[in-house]
Amino acid sequence: MKKLLLASTSTIYGSEYLEYLMPTLKSFFKDIDKILFIPYARPSGVSYDDYTKTVAKAFNSIDIKIDGIQKFKSTALAIEEAEAIFVGGGNTFVLVNELYQRDILEILKRKINSDTPYLGTSAGSNIAGLTMQTTNDMPIVYPPSYTTLGCISFNINAHYLDADPLSKHKGETRETRINEFHTYNKTPVLGLREGSWLEVNDDEVVLKGELTARCFQKK
Amino acid sequence: MKKLLLASTSTIYGSEYLEYLMPTLKSFFKDIDKILFIPYARPSGVSYDDYTKTVAKAFNSIDIKIDGIQKFKSTALAIEEAEAIFVGGGNTFVLVNELYQRDILEILKRKINSDTPYLGTSAGSNIAGLTMQTTNDMPIVYPPSYTTLGCISFNINAHYLDADPLSKHKGETRETRINEFHTYNKTPVLGLREGSWLEVNDDEVVLKGELTARCFQKK
Repeated sequence: MKKLLLASTSTIYGSEYLEYLMPTLKSFFKDIDKILFIPYARPSGVSYDDYTKTVAKAFNSIDIKIDGIQKFKSTALAIEEAEAIFVGGGNTFVLVNELYQRDILEILKRKINSDTPYLGTSAGSNIAGLTMQTTNDMPIVYPPSYTTLGCISFNINAHYLDADPLSKHKGETRETRINEFHTYNKTPVLGLREGSWLEVNDDEVVLKGELTARCFQKK
Repeated sequence: MKKLLLASTSTIYGSEYLEYLMPTLKSFFKDIDKILFIPYARPSGVSYDDYTKTVAKAFNSIDIKIDGIQKFKSTALAIEEAEAIFVGGGNTFVLVNELYQRDILEILKRKINSDTPYLGTSAGSNIAGLTMQTTNDMPIVYPPSYTTLGCISFNINAHYLDADPLSKHKGETRETRINEFHTYNKTPVLGLREGSWLEVNDDEVVLKGELTARCFQKK
Protein backbone atom coordinates (compact mmCIF):
# COMPACT_ATOMS: atom_id res chain seq x y z
CA MET A 1 0.00 0.00 0.00
CA LYS A 2 1.34 3.43 -0.99
CA LYS A 3 2.04 5.27 2.23
CA LEU A 4 3.10 8.90 2.47
CA LEU A 5 3.21 11.45 5.22
CA LEU A 6 3.45 14.96 3.79
CA ALA A 7 4.00 17.77 6.27
CA SER A 8 3.74 21.48 5.56
CA THR A 9 6.78 22.19 7.72
CA SER A 10 9.42 20.32 9.69
CA THR A 11 9.33 22.74 12.57
CA ILE A 12 6.54 24.66 14.24
CA TYR A 13 7.02 27.81 16.27
CA GLY A 14 8.54 27.30 19.72
CA SER A 15 9.39 23.64 19.12
CA GLU A 16 12.44 21.63 18.02
CA TYR A 17 13.02 20.14 14.58
CA LEU A 18 10.27 17.55 13.84
CA GLU A 19 9.26 17.56 17.53
CA TYR A 20 5.53 18.10 16.90
CA LEU A 21 5.46 15.18 14.45
CA MET A 22 7.41 12.64 16.51
CA PRO A 23 4.43 10.76 18.03
CA THR A 24 2.98 10.46 14.52
CA LEU A 25 6.32 9.41 13.01
CA LYS A 26 6.77 6.77 15.67
CA SER A 27 3.58 5.13 14.53
CA PHE A 28 4.11 5.84 10.80
CA PHE A 29 7.55 4.20 10.87
CA LYS A 30 6.69 1.52 13.43
CA ASP A 31 8.28 -1.38 11.54
CA ILE A 32 11.22 0.62 10.25
CA ASP A 33 14.78 0.51 11.64
CA LYS A 34 16.47 2.83 9.20
CA ILE A 35 15.38 5.69 6.95
CA LEU A 36 17.20 6.93 3.88
CA PHE A 37 17.42 10.72 4.16
CA ILE A 38 17.69 12.91 1.07
CA PRO A 39 19.15 16.29 2.08
CA TYR A 40 19.37 17.84 -1.40
CA ALA A 41 17.08 20.81 -0.68
CA ARG A 42 19.79 22.26 1.62
CA PRO A 43 17.87 24.83 3.72
CA SER A 44 20.05 27.94 4.14
CA GLY A 45 22.71 26.16 2.08
CA VAL A 46 23.52 23.71 4.92
CA SER A 47 25.87 20.82 3.99
CA TYR A 48 24.39 17.37 3.35
CA ASP A 49 26.23 15.97 6.38
CA ASP A 50 25.12 18.71 8.77
CA TYR A 51 21.53 18.42 7.59
CA THR A 52 21.65 14.66 8.05
CA LYS A 53 23.00 15.08 11.60
CA THR A 54 20.02 17.26 12.52
CA VAL A 55 17.64 14.64 11.18
CA ALA A 56 19.48 11.77 12.87
CA LYS A 57 19.31 13.58 16.19
CA ALA A 58 15.55 14.01 15.90
CA PHE A 59 14.94 10.36 14.93
CA ASN A 60 17.25 9.12 17.66
CA SER A 61 14.42 9.85 20.11
CA ILE A 62 12.31 7.12 18.51
CA ASP A 63 15.21 4.73 17.92
CA ILE A 64 15.33 5.01 14.15
CA LYS A 65 18.66 5.29 12.34
CA ILE A 66 19.20 7.76 9.52
CA ASP A 67 21.43 7.21 6.49
CA GLY A 68 22.19 10.28 4.40
CA ILE A 69 22.03 9.40 0.71
CA GLN A 70 25.37 11.21 0.18
CA LYS A 71 27.26 8.37 1.86
CA PHE A 72 26.27 5.84 -0.83
CA LYS A 73 28.25 5.28 -4.01
CA SER A 74 25.08 4.71 -6.02
CA THR A 75 22.18 6.99 -5.16
CA ALA A 76 19.87 4.88 -7.32
CA LEU A 77 20.82 1.72 -5.44
CA ALA A 78 20.45 3.51 -2.10
CA ILE A 79 16.87 4.39 -3.01
CA GLU A 80 16.19 0.92 -4.42
CA GLU A 81 17.25 -0.72 -1.16
CA ALA A 82 15.74 1.78 1.30
CA GLU A 83 13.30 0.60 3.97
CA ALA A 84 11.80 4.09 4.11
CA ILE A 85 12.59 7.50 2.66
CA PHE A 86 12.57 11.05 4.03
CA VAL A 87 13.06 14.08 1.81
CA GLY A 88 13.63 17.19 3.93
CA GLY A 89 12.74 20.81 3.23
CA GLY A 90 14.82 23.64 1.86
CA ASN A 91 14.80 25.09 -1.64
CA THR A 92 12.50 23.19 -4.00
CA PHE A 93 14.36 24.33 -7.15
CA VAL A 94 17.63 23.02 -5.73
CA LEU A 95 15.99 19.75 -4.68
CA VAL A 96 14.28 19.11 -8.01
CA ASN A 97 17.40 20.06 -9.94
CA GLU A 98 19.45 17.51 -7.97
CA LEU A 99 16.86 14.78 -8.53
CA TYR A 100 17.07 15.43 -12.28
CA GLN A 101 20.86 15.79 -12.42
CA ARG A 102 21.23 12.44 -10.65
CA ASP A 103 18.42 10.95 -12.72
CA ILE A 104 16.63 9.51 -9.69
CA LEU A 105 13.17 11.04 -9.94
CA GLU A 106 11.68 8.03 -11.70
CA ILE A 107 13.23 5.47 -9.39
CA LEU A 108 12.09 7.46 -6.37
CA LYS A 109 8.55 7.55 -7.72
CA ARG A 110 8.54 3.83 -8.48
CA LYS A 111 9.86 3.05 -5.03
CA ILE A 112 7.19 5.16 -3.29
CA ASN A 113 4.45 3.73 -5.48
CA SER A 114 5.55 0.23 -4.52
CA ASP A 115 4.83 0.77 -0.84
CA THR A 116 8.01 2.21 0.66
CA PRO A 117 6.96 4.65 3.40
CA TYR A 118 7.76 8.22 2.38
CA LEU A 119 8.03 11.25 4.62
CA GLY A 120 8.25 14.74 3.13
CA THR A 121 8.46 18.09 4.85
CA SER A 122 8.00 21.38 3.01
CA ALA A 123 9.99 21.01 -0.27
CA GLY A 124 9.91 17.23 0.32
CA SER A 125 6.10 17.38 0.42
CA ASN A 126 5.95 19.74 -2.53
CA ILE A 127 7.67 17.21 -4.80
CA ALA A 128 5.06 14.55 -4.04
CA GLY A 129 2.65 16.62 -6.15
CA LEU A 130 2.39 16.73 -9.93
CA THR A 131 4.66 19.72 -10.33
CA MET A 132 6.77 21.99 -8.14
CA GLN A 133 4.99 25.02 -9.54
CA THR A 134 3.30 26.00 -6.29
CA THR A 135 6.50 26.30 -4.31
CA ASN A 136 7.17 29.52 -2.40
CA ASP A 137 10.90 29.29 -3.05
CA MET A 138 13.21 31.44 -5.14
CA PRO A 139 14.42 30.04 -8.47
CA ILE A 140 18.05 30.06 -7.35
CA VAL A 141 18.93 27.26 -9.79
CA TYR A 142 17.29 26.30 -13.11
CA PRO A 143 15.98 22.72 -13.03
CA PRO A 144 15.47 20.86 -16.34
CA SER A 145 11.74 20.57 -15.64
CA TYR A 146 9.14 21.47 -13.01
CA THR A 147 7.53 18.02 -13.18
CA THR A 148 7.79 16.14 -9.89
CA LEU A 149 6.77 12.76 -8.46
CA GLY A 150 3.02 12.86 -8.94
CA CYS A 151 2.44 10.44 -6.07
CA ILE A 152 -0.66 12.48 -5.28
CA SER A 153 -3.07 13.87 -7.86
CA PHE A 154 -2.71 17.53 -6.88
CA ASN A 155 -0.07 20.08 -5.92
CA ILE A 156 0.83 21.19 -2.42
CA ASN A 157 1.52 24.72 -1.30
CA ALA A 158 3.52 24.27 1.91
CA HIS A 159 3.66 26.86 4.71
CA TYR A 160 0.28 28.10 3.49
CA LEU A 161 -0.35 31.53 4.92
CA ASP A 162 -3.59 33.49 5.04
CA ALA A 163 -3.44 37.11 3.96
CA ASP A 164 -3.01 39.49 6.89
CA PRO A 165 -5.98 41.91 6.65
CA LEU A 166 -3.91 44.55 8.47
CA SER A 167 -0.88 44.30 6.19
CA LYS A 168 0.24 47.36 4.28
CA HIS A 169 2.48 45.27 2.05
CA LYS A 170 1.40 45.22 -1.60
CA GLY A 171 3.27 42.08 -2.72
CA GLU A 172 0.94 39.32 -3.88
CA THR A 173 -0.78 37.26 -1.19
CA ARG A 174 -0.43 33.48 -1.29
CA GLU A 175 -4.03 33.22 -2.49
CA THR A 176 -3.32 35.62 -5.37
CA ARG A 177 -0.25 33.61 -6.37
CA ILE A 178 -2.14 30.31 -6.42
CA ASN A 179 -4.99 31.87 -8.39
CA GLU A 180 -2.38 33.14 -10.89
CA PHE A 181 -1.12 29.54 -11.12
CA HIS A 182 -4.63 28.54 -12.16
CA THR A 183 -4.59 31.06 -14.99
CA TYR A 184 -2.08 28.73 -16.68
CA ASN A 185 -2.61 25.32 -15.04
CA LYS A 186 -5.47 22.99 -14.10
CA THR A 187 -3.88 21.01 -11.26
CA PRO A 188 -5.76 21.50 -7.96
CA VAL A 189 -3.64 22.97 -5.17
CA LEU A 190 -3.86 22.26 -1.46
CA GLY A 191 -2.67 25.10 0.76
CA LEU A 192 -1.31 23.23 3.77
CA ARG A 193 -0.87 25.37 6.89
CA GLU A 194 2.06 24.93 9.25
CA GLY A 195 1.36 22.21 11.80
CA SER A 196 -0.78 20.31 9.26
CA TRP A 197 0.15 17.18 7.38
CA LEU A 198 -1.40 14.72 4.97
CA GLU A 199 -1.55 10.98 5.50
CA VAL A 200 -1.77 9.24 2.16
CA ASN A 201 -2.77 5.58 1.92
CA ASP A 202 -3.05 4.66 -1.72
CA ASP A 203 -5.75 6.99 -3.02
CA GLU A 204 -7.00 8.07 0.38
CA VAL A 205 -5.67 11.42 1.57
CA VAL A 206 -6.44 12.54 5.11
CA LEU A 207 -5.64 15.96 6.56
CA LYS A 208 -4.11 15.83 10.02
CA GLY A 209 -3.25 18.43 12.63
CA GLU A 210 -5.52 20.99 14.21
CA LEU A 211 -6.07 23.31 11.27
CA THR A 212 -8.13 23.28 8.11
CA ALA A 213 -6.45 23.41 4.71
CA ARG A 214 -7.42 25.41 1.62
CA CYS A 215 -8.25 23.68 -1.62
CA PHE A 216 -7.83 25.78 -4.77
CA GLN A 217 -9.27 24.69 -8.10
CA LYS A 218 -9.18 26.29 -11.51
CA LYS A 219 -12.33 28.37 -11.97
CA MET B 1 22.34 58.15 -21.97
CA LYS B 2 20.82 54.94 -20.57
CA LYS B 3 17.90 56.00 -18.40
CA LEU B 4 15.85 53.64 -16.25
CA LEU B 5 13.43 54.09 -13.41
CA LEU B 6 12.99 50.83 -11.50
CA ALA B 7 10.32 50.78 -8.81
CA SER B 8 9.79 48.09 -6.19
CA THR B 9 6.04 48.33 -6.59
CA SER B 10 3.46 50.13 -8.72
CA THR B 11 1.17 50.82 -5.82
CA ILE B 12 1.77 51.71 -2.21
CA TYR B 13 -0.70 51.17 0.60
CA GLY B 14 -3.65 53.54 0.64
CA SER B 15 -2.86 55.04 -2.74
CA GLU B 16 -3.97 54.57 -6.36
CA TYR B 17 -2.01 52.73 -9.07
CA LEU B 18 1.30 54.59 -9.70
CA GLU B 19 0.00 57.61 -7.75
CA TYR B 20 3.03 57.96 -5.47
CA LEU B 21 5.36 57.94 -8.50
CA MET B 22 3.48 60.39 -10.69
CA PRO B 23 5.47 63.56 -9.83
CA THR B 24 8.67 61.61 -10.55
CA LEU B 25 7.28 60.13 -13.75
CA LYS B 26 6.22 63.54 -14.97
CA SER B 27 9.82 64.67 -14.80
CA PHE B 28 11.31 61.32 -15.95
CA PHE B 29 9.13 61.31 -19.09
CA LYS B 30 9.14 65.08 -19.62
CA ASP B 31 9.90 64.97 -23.37
CA ILE B 32 7.75 61.92 -24.04
CA ASP B 33 4.28 61.94 -25.59
CA LYS B 34 3.63 58.23 -25.77
CA ILE B 35 4.87 55.17 -23.88
CA LEU B 36 4.85 51.59 -25.14
CA PHE B 37 3.36 49.45 -22.37
CA ILE B 38 4.23 45.76 -22.08
CA PRO B 39 1.51 44.02 -20.03
CA TYR B 40 2.86 40.44 -20.32
CA ALA B 41 3.29 39.87 -16.56
CA ARG B 42 -0.51 39.88 -16.17
CA PRO B 43 -1.02 40.44 -12.41
CA SER B 44 -3.87 38.20 -11.21
CA GLY B 45 -4.20 36.98 -14.79
CA VAL B 46 -5.70 40.29 -16.00
CA SER B 47 -6.09 40.65 -19.79
CA TYR B 48 -3.55 42.71 -21.72
CA ASP B 49 -6.24 45.23 -22.66
CA ASP B 50 -7.58 45.67 -19.15
CA TYR B 51 -4.07 46.07 -17.77
CA THR B 52 -3.27 48.65 -20.44
CA LYS B 53 -6.44 50.60 -19.57
CA THR B 54 -5.35 50.85 -15.93
CA VAL B 55 -1.97 52.17 -16.99
CA ALA B 56 -3.46 54.60 -19.53
CA LYS B 57 -5.75 56.01 -16.87
CA ALA B 58 -2.83 56.66 -14.52
CA PHE B 59 -0.71 58.34 -17.21
CA ASN B 60 -3.64 60.40 -18.42
CA SER B 61 -3.09 62.63 -15.36
CA ILE B 62 0.28 63.73 -16.79
CA ASP B 63 -0.89 63.88 -20.41
CA ILE B 64 1.06 60.89 -21.67
CA LYS B 65 -0.57 58.38 -24.03
CA ILE B 66 -0.14 54.65 -23.57
CA ASP B 67 0.05 52.08 -26.36
CA GLY B 68 -0.31 48.45 -25.30
CA ILE B 69 2.19 46.30 -27.24
CA GLN B 70 -0.62 43.83 -28.01
CA LYS B 71 -2.15 46.21 -30.53
CA PHE B 72 0.89 46.07 -32.84
CA LYS B 73 1.34 43.46 -35.55
CA SER B 74 5.08 43.28 -34.92
CA THR B 75 6.12 43.40 -31.28
CA ALA B 76 9.75 43.80 -32.34
CA LEU B 77 8.93 46.81 -34.49
CA ALA B 78 6.77 48.29 -31.73
CA ILE B 79 9.76 48.17 -29.39
CA GLU B 80 12.14 49.44 -32.06
CA GLU B 81 9.98 52.50 -32.66
CA ALA B 82 8.99 53.26 -29.05
CA GLU B 83 9.72 56.66 -27.55
CA ALA B 84 9.71 55.14 -24.09
CA ILE B 85 8.88 51.75 -22.57
CA PHE B 86 7.06 50.61 -19.44
CA VAL B 87 7.01 46.99 -18.31
CA GLY B 88 4.45 46.51 -15.56
CA GLY B 89 4.41 44.07 -12.64
CA GLY B 90 2.74 40.71 -12.27
CA ASN B 91 4.29 37.27 -12.49
CA THR B 92 7.97 37.38 -13.48
CA PHE B 93 7.97 33.81 -14.86
CA VAL B 94 5.06 34.66 -17.15
CA LEU B 95 6.70 37.91 -18.23
CA VAL B 96 10.10 36.36 -18.96
CA ASN B 97 8.51 33.43 -20.75
CA GLU B 98 6.59 35.79 -23.06
CA LEU B 99 9.73 37.82 -23.81
CA TYR B 100 11.50 34.60 -24.85
CA GLN B 101 8.55 33.13 -26.78
CA ARG B 102 8.28 36.35 -28.78
CA ASP B 103 12.07 36.60 -29.07
CA ILE B 104 12.16 40.24 -27.99
CA LEU B 105 14.50 40.16 -24.98
CA GLU B 106 17.56 41.16 -27.00
CA ILE B 107 15.83 43.91 -28.91
CA LEU B 108 14.39 45.29 -25.68
CA LYS B 109 17.85 45.31 -24.11
CA ARG B 110 19.41 47.02 -27.12
CA LYS B 111 16.68 49.62 -27.16
CA ILE B 112 17.10 50.44 -23.44
CA ASN B 113 20.88 50.52 -23.75
CA SER B 114 20.55 52.99 -26.60
CA ASP B 115 18.87 55.60 -24.43
CA THR B 116 15.14 54.87 -24.62
CA PRO B 117 13.67 55.73 -21.21
CA TYR B 118 12.53 52.57 -19.42
CA LEU B 119 10.13 52.29 -16.51
CA GLY B 120 9.77 49.04 -14.61
CA THR B 121 7.61 48.21 -11.63
CA SER B 122 7.99 44.99 -9.63
CA ALA B 123 8.44 42.21 -12.27
CA GLY B 124 9.31 44.95 -14.76
CA SER B 125 12.14 46.08 -12.47
CA ASN B 126 13.21 42.53 -11.75
CA ILE B 127 13.93 41.86 -15.43
CA ALA B 128 16.32 44.84 -15.62
CA GLY B 129 18.75 42.77 -13.52
CA LEU B 130 21.03 39.99 -14.72
CA THR B 131 18.61 37.18 -13.95
CA MET B 132 15.06 36.80 -12.65
CA GLN B 133 16.29 34.46 -9.93
CA THR B 134 15.47 36.78 -7.05
CA THR B 135 11.79 37.08 -7.90
CA ASN B 136 9.23 36.32 -5.20
CA ASP B 137 6.81 34.86 -7.71
CA MET B 138 5.56 31.34 -8.22
CA PRO B 139 6.93 29.37 -11.19
CA ILE B 140 3.52 29.07 -12.80
CA VAL B 141 5.07 28.70 -16.27
CA TYR B 142 8.50 27.34 -17.29
CA PRO B 143 10.55 29.96 -19.15
CA PRO B 144 13.37 28.80 -21.47
CA SER B 145 15.92 30.63 -19.29
CA TYR B 146 16.16 32.80 -16.18
CA THR B 147 18.54 35.26 -17.89
CA THR B 148 17.04 38.74 -18.18
CA LEU B 149 18.04 42.15 -19.57
CA GLY B 150 21.16 42.87 -17.54
CA CYS B 151 20.72 46.62 -17.94
CA ILE B 152 22.03 46.90 -14.38
CA SER B 153 24.91 44.89 -12.95
CA PHE B 154 22.96 43.29 -10.11
CA ASN B 155 19.62 41.66 -9.36
CA ILE B 156 16.62 43.28 -7.75
CA ASN B 157 14.38 41.77 -5.12
CA ALA B 158 11.20 43.80 -5.39
CA HIS B 159 8.71 44.22 -2.52
CA TYR B 160 11.61 43.60 -0.14
CA LEU B 161 10.24 42.76 3.27
CA ASP B 162 12.08 42.65 6.58
CA ALA B 163 11.48 39.65 8.77
CA ASP B 164 8.80 40.21 11.37
CA PRO B 165 10.47 39.45 14.73
CA LEU B 166 7.06 38.56 16.18
CA SER B 167 6.11 36.13 13.43
CA LYS B 168 5.38 32.54 14.32
CA HIS B 169 5.55 31.48 10.69
CA LYS B 170 8.45 29.15 9.90
CA GLY B 171 8.61 29.66 6.13
CA GLU B 172 11.89 31.20 4.98
CA THR B 173 12.30 34.94 5.44
CA ARG B 174 13.23 37.04 2.41
CA GLU B 175 16.74 37.42 3.82
CA THR B 176 17.11 33.63 4.11
CA ARG B 177 15.93 33.18 0.52
CA ILE B 178 18.40 35.72 -0.86
CA ASN B 179 21.23 34.18 1.16
CA GLU B 180 20.26 30.79 -0.32
CA PHE B 181 20.51 32.42 -3.76
CA HIS B 182 24.11 33.32 -2.90
CA THR B 183 24.90 29.70 -2.12
CA TYR B 184 24.65 29.11 -5.89
CA ASN B 185 25.15 32.55 -7.47
CA LYS B 186 27.52 35.52 -7.22
CA THR B 187 25.29 38.33 -8.52
CA PRO B 188 24.71 41.02 -5.86
CA VAL B 189 21.07 41.55 -4.93
CA LEU B 190 19.36 44.76 -3.95
CA GLY B 191 16.35 44.31 -1.70
CA LEU B 192 14.15 47.25 -2.72
CA ARG B 193 11.42 48.12 -0.24
CA GLU B 194 7.96 49.23 -1.33
CA GLY B 195 7.88 52.97 -1.98
CA SER B 196 11.53 52.89 -3.13
CA TRP B 197 12.83 53.12 -6.67
CA LEU B 198 16.12 53.33 -8.49
CA GLU B 199 17.05 56.02 -10.95
CA VAL B 200 19.65 54.68 -13.36
CA ASN B 201 21.66 57.03 -15.58
CA ASP B 202 24.22 54.99 -17.47
CA ASP B 203 26.34 53.45 -14.69
CA GLU B 204 25.02 55.66 -11.92
CA VAL B 205 22.32 54.10 -9.77
CA VAL B 206 20.57 56.28 -7.18
CA LEU B 207 18.11 55.01 -4.59
CA LYS B 208 15.02 57.20 -4.26
CA GLY B 209 12.08 57.27 -1.85
CA GLU B 210 12.16 57.57 1.90
CA LEU B 211 13.54 54.16 2.83
CA THR B 212 16.92 52.47 2.79
CA ALA B 213 17.51 49.37 0.67
CA ARG B 214 19.39 46.19 1.53
CA CYS B 215 22.39 45.13 -0.49
CA PHE B 216 23.21 41.40 -0.35
CA GLN B 217 26.54 40.06 -1.59
CA LYS B 218 27.91 36.55 -1.73
CA LYS B 219 29.96 35.94 1.41
